[in-house]
Amino acid sequence: MITVRSIWRDVEKIREGAPLVHNITNYVVMNTTANALLSIGASPVMAHSVDEVEEMAGLASALVINIGTLSRPWIEAMFKAAGAARRKGIPIVFDPVGAGATSLRTETARRFLAEGHPTIVRGNGSEILALEKAKGETKGVDSRHGAEAALEAARTISRARGCAVSISGPVDVIVQEKDVIRVANGHPMMPKVTGLGCTATALTGAFAAVNPSPLRAAAHAMAVMGIAGEIAAVKASGPGSFQMHFLDALFALSEDDIASRLKVESA
Amino acid sequence: MITVRSIWRDVEKIREGAPLVHNITNYVVMNTTANALLSIGASPVMAHSVDEVEEMAGLASALVINIGTLSRPWIEAMFKAAGAARRKGIPIVFDPVGAGATSLRTETARRFLAEGHPTIVRGNGSEILALEKAKGETKGVDSRHGAEAALEAARTISRARGCAVSISGPVDVIVQEKDVIRVANGHPMMPKVTGLGCTATALTGAFAAVNPSPLRAAAHAMAVMGIAGEIAAVKASGPGSFQMHFLDALFALSEDDIASRLKVESA
Amino acid sequence: MITVRSIWRDVEKIREGAPLVHNITNYVVMNTTANALLSIGASPVMAHSVDEVEEMAGLASALVINIGTLSRPWIEAMFKAAGAARRKGIPIVFDPVGAGATSLRTETARRFLAEGHPTIVRGNGSEILALEKAKGETKGVDSRHGAEAALEAARTISRARGCAVSISGPVDVIVQEKDVIRVANGHPMMPKVTGLGCTATALTGAFAAVNPSPLRAAAHAMAVMGIAGEIAAVKASGPGSFQMHFLDALFALSEDDIASRLKVESA
Repeated sequence: MITVRSIWRDVEKIREGAPLVHNITNYVVMNTTANALLSIGASPVMAHSVDEVEEMAGLASALVINIGTLSRPWIEAMFKAAGAARRKGIPIVFDPVGAGATSLRTETARRFLAEGHPTIVRGNGSEILALEKAKGETKGVDSRHGAEAALEAARTISRARGCAVSISGPVDVIVQEKDVIRVANGHPMMPKVTGLGCTATALTGAFAAVNPSPLRAAAHAMAVMGIAGEIAAVKASGPGSFQMHFLDALFALSEDDIASRLKVESA
Repeated sequence: MITVRSIWRDVEKIREGAPLVHNITNYVVMNTTANALLSIGASPVMAHSVDEVEEMAGLASALVINIGTLSRPWIEAMFKAAGAARRKGIPIVFDPVGAGATSLRTETARRFLAEGHPTIVRGNGSEILALEKAKGETKGVDSRHGAEAALEAARTISRARGCAVSISGPVDVIVQEKDVIRVANGHPMMPKVTGLGCTATALTGAFAAVNPSPLRAAAHAMAVMGIAGEIAAVKASGPGSFQMHFLDALFALSEDDIASRLKVESA
Repeated sequence: MITVRSIWRDVEKIREGAPLVHNITNYVVMNTTANALLSIGASPVMAHSVDEVEEMAGLASALVINIGTLSRPWIEAMFKAAGAARRKGIPIVFDPVGAGATSLRTETARRFLAEGHPTIVRGNGSEILALEKAKGETKGVDSRHGAEAALEAARTISRARGCAVSISGPVDVIVQEKDVIRVANGHPMMPKVTGLGCTATALTGAFAAVNPSPLRAAAHAMAVMGIAGEIAAVKASGPGSFQMHFLDALFALSEDDIASRLKVESA
């Protein structure tokens, strides 16, 4: 069960423990996802060289892998880091950004799913569909609809790989085997800010660092994303001010904010 | 003729069609140019690996190439992407950031001009001059004067290469063969924010995606940049708040904003 | 002696001369450090390719090296750029981000200390300690305490290498041989914004470009950082708005701001 209390307990754990979240992510969002992790209370580190990712993952409490600006040397580092994370027993959150758009992304994402052993996969509907079947084209990386359309694909992935799958959209859908949680928080301005999907992935890493249930960690992260987004939208005049208020909202997030806004449904 | 109506028609087309703009750009501005493209209504994607740029350019409606943080593997990707863009027939916008400062940049920029077949070249005065002749040194990449001084070089480039040339400055000068358009919108705070030149280039990509005339697409983009900059300046207290208000202004841009501020002159 | 007047004289020199600061820095902070340099009045350039760093350093008035997202090709470029900076006689500011966390960072940082001949080393307490002895682990790169604990290590480094060492913390400690300056400006929100340590390093580059004393340049930069942080904190509601107000504060910084807030102590 996802409750105000269960979310808040994780937020408190993140703020008290400041878990180190090791990110191998894309150039576009490194600054904003590091800031989101700091704002929620975690300790971000970005490190991508094959010469240090294993050691860095060995210091971390969670590993976040995001393929948003992929290239061969980074792919090698992603698999090395995932191996080290597995050996240490920390959660691995994987964001298949742009899977379905190019063969490099689709194939890398599928291979990571098979060999990287992610604990949680987090993407939009078309990315999750692209992991499962070769249909549809991803238009850029900003597709925010179709979470529900990817539910069956997510279930198949979850069963085959033993991971949770977190699909973002107007209503987020989080799946683990037969369990489904829906989070209806959020705001239409969010897809107008670059990297908020990647931020959801990074925050999922922070929650996975403090919560042993991948399903709950993923749902807690999406609820916090959505609630901070709603708070930011009240003050924002556009995507620029939204991004600023979003970080401020994560930083100031209170149990009351969650209690007054949470829209979650478990099935 | 550049009119309020011609600009507004393009803005509407961008907002309705959300054209995918493929950017191979520099590390400094990836986040802010992606946000500017989203704010105006386009769909940005950043992809730079030689293993996927051709496929990505093949999905896009415009290709933007920016050499701001250049290195050998990226140069190879830029030419591959340009080849794919040409085969697909989509416009290529080229920003020779820092041409004139180092040999790597000057030579790469000149080679791209010759072999990359850009549809529009967009830079500041000293960068455009550096493409044409080997005189003068670029001091960093923030030179904002000298648009007028580069007019003849721009005309020579336009004639030799069949492209439009868009030179930013206090008064922007956009050239195609014998045609010249001047845009006097903008604000002195703009050179104090990193990457607004690169943002002009990215937005030029969005306008080129919906307007078949390189000259007009480039002029429309510079007018929208300058007008959004003027709106931002009214609210800003410095470069930090300027950047935020600029994105908000792009997002909220109305036909009235353009009508009340446009300062354009065709010759 | 660090005085309001000595700081202000350097700020005026930066604003008048707009010195070119060449940065080889990490992906996370490129945008924000470029903006901070522009806001204080300097001209930033980011260039990292082995094919151009020597030429670019040859055009610059200061070189800033930051190992925050290190990899082999960048290491080679850092040493090449440092060689060119030395030959030209411009100051080199070095930030050993994450030294102590992984062998790649610790070893690269130590080698740069020995062979790169930095003019000023700027880091947090655990990074400075990691340069000197192999004890302690760095938790991420956000450690902000322990400036005082690293004083002896800083003195040893300064004596052995002939450089100044600038250690950030609630009270910053700047050391050159037997001289110590403490700067007590700043705000607890600063470690909640990613890259403000890297921003301190970049600003140190701008001050080193106009002040021949490494000790004073480093202390002036830390005072300006701290004072701008205090001004930003008055207006900020969290880390998002803090970052924005910080850039605005740097841009608007007046001699009165310094006079009313400076907390410095020389020993």
